Amino acid sequence: MKRLEDIHSPKDVKKMNKEELSALCDQLRQTMIETVSHTGGHLASNLGTVELTVALHRVFTTPHDAIVWDVGHQCYAHKLLTDRYERFGSLRQQGGISGFPNPAESEHDAFVAGHSSTSISVANGIAKAKALTGDDGYAIAVIGDGALTGGLAYEGLSNAGRSEDRLIVILNDNKMSISRNVGFVARYLSNLRNQVNYLKSKERISRFLVKIPLIGKPLVRLMKRYTKRLKRKVFANTTFFENMGFRYMGPVDGHDIKALTEALRTAKRVRRPVVLHVDTVKGKGSSYAEQSPDTYHGISKFDPDTGVPVSGGESFSCRFGDALCKLAEKDKKVVAVTAAMVGGTCLEQFAEKYPTRFFDTGIAEEHAVTFSAGMAKGGLIPVFAVYSTFLQRSYDQLINDTSLMNNHIVLAIDRAGVVPDDGETHQGIYDVAMLSTIPNTTLYAPSNFAELECHLKQALYDTPGIAALRYPKGGEDPILKKHLPTGQAYDYDRQGNGVLLVTYGRTYGAVKAYVESQPDQALSVLKLNRVLPLTDDVVAIAKEYACVLVMEETRGGMGELLGSALLKAGYAGRYGVRSIEETLGACTTAQGLNRVGLDVEGIASFVQAHTEGL
Amino acid sequence: MKRLEDIHSPKDVKKMNKEELSALCDQLRQTMIETVSHTGGHLASNLGTVELTVALHRVFTTPHDAIVWDVGHQCYAHKLLTDRYERFGSLRQQGGISGFPNPAESEHDAFVAGHSSTSISVANGIAKAKALTGDDGYAIAVIGDGALTGGLAYEGLSNAGRSEDRLIVILNDNKMSISRNVGFVARYLSNLRNQVNYLKSKERISRFLVKIPLIGKPLVRLMKRYTKRLKRKVFANTTFFENMGFRYMGPVDGHDIKALTEALRTAKRVRRPVVLHVDTVKGKGSSYAEQSPDTYHGISKFDPDTGVPVSGGESFSCRFGDALCKLAEKDKKVVAVTAAMVGGTCLEQFAEKYPTRFFDTGIAEEHAVTFSAGMAKGGLIPVFAVYSTFLQRSYDQLINDTSLMNNHIVLAIDRAGVVPDDGETHQGIYDVAMLSTIPNTTLYAPSNFAELECHLKQALYDTPGIAALRYPKGGEDPILKKHLPTGQAYDYDRQGNGVLLVTYGRTYGAVKAYVESQPDQALSVLKLNRVLPLTDDVVAIAKEYACVLVMEETRGGMGELLGSALLKAGYAGRYGVRSIEETLGACTTAQGLNRVGLDVEGIASFVQAHTEGL
Repeated sequence: MKRLEDIHSPKDVKKMNKEELSALCDQLRQTMIETVSHTGGHLASNLGTVELTVALHRVFTTPHDAIVWDVGHQCYAHKLLTDRYERFGSLRQQGGISGFPNPAESEHDAFVAGHSSTSISVANGIAKAKALTGDDGYAIAVIGDGALTGGLAYEGLSNAGRSEDRLIVILNDNKMSISRNVGFVARYLSNLRNQVNYLKSKERISRFLVKIPLIGKPLVRLMKRYTKRLKRKVFANTTFFENMGFRYMGPVDGHDIKALTEALRTAKRVRRPVVLHVDTVKGKGSSYAEQSPDTYHGISKFDPDTGVPVSGGESFSCRFGDALCKLAEKDKKVVAVTAAMVGGTCLEQFAEKYPTRFFDTGIAEEHAVTFSAGMAKGGLIPVFAVYSTFLQRSYDQLINDTSLMNNHIVLAIDRAGVVPDDGETHQGIYDVAMLSTIPNTTLYAPSNFAELECHLKQALYDTPGIAALRYPKGGEDPILKKHLPTGQAYDYDRQGNGVLLVTYGRTYGAVKAYVESQPDQALSVLKLNRVLPLTDDVVAIAKEYACVLVMEETRGGMGELLGSALLKAGYAGRYGVRSIEETLGACTTAQGLNRVGLDVEGIASFVQAHTEGL
Repeated sequence: MKRLEDIHSPKDVKKMNKEELSALCDQLRQTMIETVSHTGGHLASNLGTVELTVALHRVFTTPHDAIVWDVGHQCYAHKLLTDRYERFGSLRQQGGISGFPNPAESEHDAFVAGHSSTSISVANGIAKAKALTGDDGYAIAVIGDGALTGGLAYEGLSNAGRSEDRLIVILNDNKMSISRNVGFVARYLSNLRNQVNYLKSKERISRFLVKIPLIGKPLVRLMKRYTKRLKRKVFANTTFFENMGFRYMGPVDGHDIKALTEALRTAKRVRRPVVLHVDTVKGKGSSYAEQSPDTYHGISKFDPDTGVPVSGGESFSCRFGDALCKLAEKDKKVVAVTAAMVGGTCLEQFAEKYPTRFFDTGIAEEHAVTFSAGMAKGGLIPVFAVYSTFLQRSYDQLINDTSLMNNHIVLAIDRAGVVPDDGETHQGIYDVAMLSTIPNTTLYAPSNFAELECHLKQALYDTPGIAALRYPKGGEDPILKKHLPTGQAYDYDRQGNGVLLVTYGRTYGAVKAYVESQPDQALSVLKLNRVLPLTDDVVAIAKEYACVLVMEETRGGMGELLGSALLKAGYAGRYGVRSIEETLGACTTAQGLNRVGLDVEGIASFVQAHTEGL
């Protein structure tokens, strides 16, 4: 009997019989649970799509056919079936298998994913390219109900439905987004499931009517004609997806390989874009993951038998959640917004205590910002807690709907800087540069928990316009535990006029450790608490030095601003910037900081190289 | 009889009788046509919403009730009714009435608009703030069918529908977006209009059935029960809007003030969010605007009797359209994408010649980029023509879906720099800074038509990753007509080692004029053809000078990059940057360039101030 070890290409899956397929699915699940218990990862969603993935590889042939996994939270089975079983233990490790699809890793991965709701647009593009270049392959987007809450998915459906290309959208309906699904999509899909059941049973009325003597049969005909007309006019145009131009099929049991295989084969034969609605159970096959799919959506290492996570300790996220609750207790104007990251941003407590003041928008960062701007205009103090990487989706809404009117909203930017495990699509390295271009924006960068609390309060009450805080994933640097917040724009420790180290946020810990390790050198430190806007007094301080060195955990931002400002101010000393220039794949936080040279060691060599001969 | 001159507040509208209202509507239209013929503006959409605006001001009381106009292409009647009639002649002029809603201009303008699809999210926020602060006012979003094609509108509907606040969404269905409406929204709304007509007529069947002796009445009852059940199960959950959680009403004749007034009063009484579907004619009341609503969507000055536009001459946009057609003729892989700006970006000819290779995504800039990235992955060469200000919506899609995989797409960034007439929401001043943060991105800045053609070709064929060109609205500077493209990364005119002027794009014309006016001064000029990425040889050239001055038509970008790079390279001379720091309201291009100091005069004083004493 073939097992996972024997599968070196999806071709091998096509040859398997029913028993083998069933055993294969069990083994895929065991491998995932076992691996993720050691590496952490997106467990529940991957457990839910095992049969779907197997069926896809039975019916389609990658890379000729392109499977585009939305977000990528369901690509583990696909990776295991496409010759990555042996390396799968390196999941989400530096140099290992990425937790997300990546064409650089395998030709079977059609496109990079990581941010939600892109797959339909991507598959639309790939299918169009195939059509125009005479390639008869299919493009298949696999998208969850959660990802459908994003506006980009709607734009994708609306546009893709107009095409006549070989395009299939698999709607992986597990009734959850990351948190429990919200809004239209949940309500709509539930209605859709009910409707289909209802229509199956409506035939019963005809069966009754036909028994009426004489007039029965003509009446049934009349009624059928009427129903048909009603159906054509109302129902045929009814499913959201058919209005988009798709042929709608489903729902199909997402754990029945035979049914899935048949449905996919049918979908292939339809000569226009198809939406195939597949009903899956998030966390399928694991008692704890099925019961708490949100807990096991993205999880750190855990005990594979009990599912009990290996504790991670206190984090900036949770201190933020606690602090916001305290502020909200005193001020009813404080409201909290998240885009499907209730748990990740630690807003559960807020949601429970202040349900009418808590808003989970679904995966809709654009709406989250514009909605917040509207609430701000109406006199509330909205706090949008969002991962740095996802805030990129709100750039225009920050400029036009918020900054232009100087609306006061607070951005709690979580996962700023190096982000462990998730790799290149999740690094929080654009926020500083992005916000630096937006007028009326203040950015705080707390370096420890106490500063987080202090600056959060300042952001709410002492900062007009866009008041943002950025903080990393995880806990505070032990060296900064006792550092007391001053509440000032910067903390300045002057040691002569030789070398000034400018830094902010988490990096301050490494800089402090380095400075303490060099008692003989006179190293001044300017720790920015408010990174943006850059002020004249920061420039004036820096100008006094023979050498100014900026260290920042971001891809561009303060380094360019300060350098340019110093030069304009007539500074003629040395200048150096250490920031994140490279694309950073999966790694631990420590590995990442080491690779970009922002740990103590990296800072030491950076400072030494720039101060030589001074 | 009251006339527009007598209306100083919307209160006055509430007192008017039927004849007065009808005359008022006529006068509103006349005023718009007359004014826009002199000032240019968004005519057709404003003509279509006259009665709707009057009805809104009869039923609601601004600013207690907040009317949020989506995009703002339909706010002229509102402005005329809220005490801006006398200043209306200054529409879109420097210091005059903005063409878009602006709370800084009037308390009756609830929110800034200008970018599409935001109104539902904004109104959701305002309604929520009202609910939480005990204000019993309503928030009313007025959104066109075109704006519904944007994903943000979908996110807004999905979230707002869940609320229980005083929120009304007016769907202004004129069957057009800017170009003819595309995709789901058009098809769906057309179905919706048909459905309602159909259901009105279905009563006829019952009337026939009831005449059948004996069994007729029970049958009708049975059938009604069946139909009701079917309707409840199928139809009640059918309208897209009811699935979103809204009560759906309509369609109502959008040019019947009485019907509109009644519908709005009913909507007010519903205790949950309402979508009121209003049927309007874009361009209503003007024969030429009704016939060609897309031509009269946004228009320059024209003859108010015939509608013939005052010719504007050749433009970068149209030269781009021509050049792209020529390239597409030779290469079938070239495809063009626009987000509802076929006319504005001059892609009509392309659309006509290559219909299968032309894609209008609707107002969906996110999809446009991700779709393009998918096509690029599939081997095509997609060219997305987009206004600078709207490209802001694609920031995340450029990073994750395009840059990370180094997908090759071309961005034709139109309306870059100072944009006349439309004011602060339409200035193209963020693109350089935004693109400078994205890896694998090259930005060209043609200064005249010949360079546009040259760099477009380079962007398509000699530039990996994201290959962008930025060019302004309007034509080329006469002084640059004879400037020949070199196709190099920069053109360098060296005159000694004193002063180096660094510039790019349109600004080169003003710099050249200034330099030519100063024959006695040795002014070197470094004209960047490729603005991004900044290269070492540009830094090496600049480093040789005693004074380096950057002039750029953008809000930040090259100035910070070059300054910081120079300082790192050990440069110790003078450095100055002239860029766009202020928020620029409506103005002509010349006025705008003058105000930000990027015309010849501004450049003269900038250079003189920085070179004094050299």
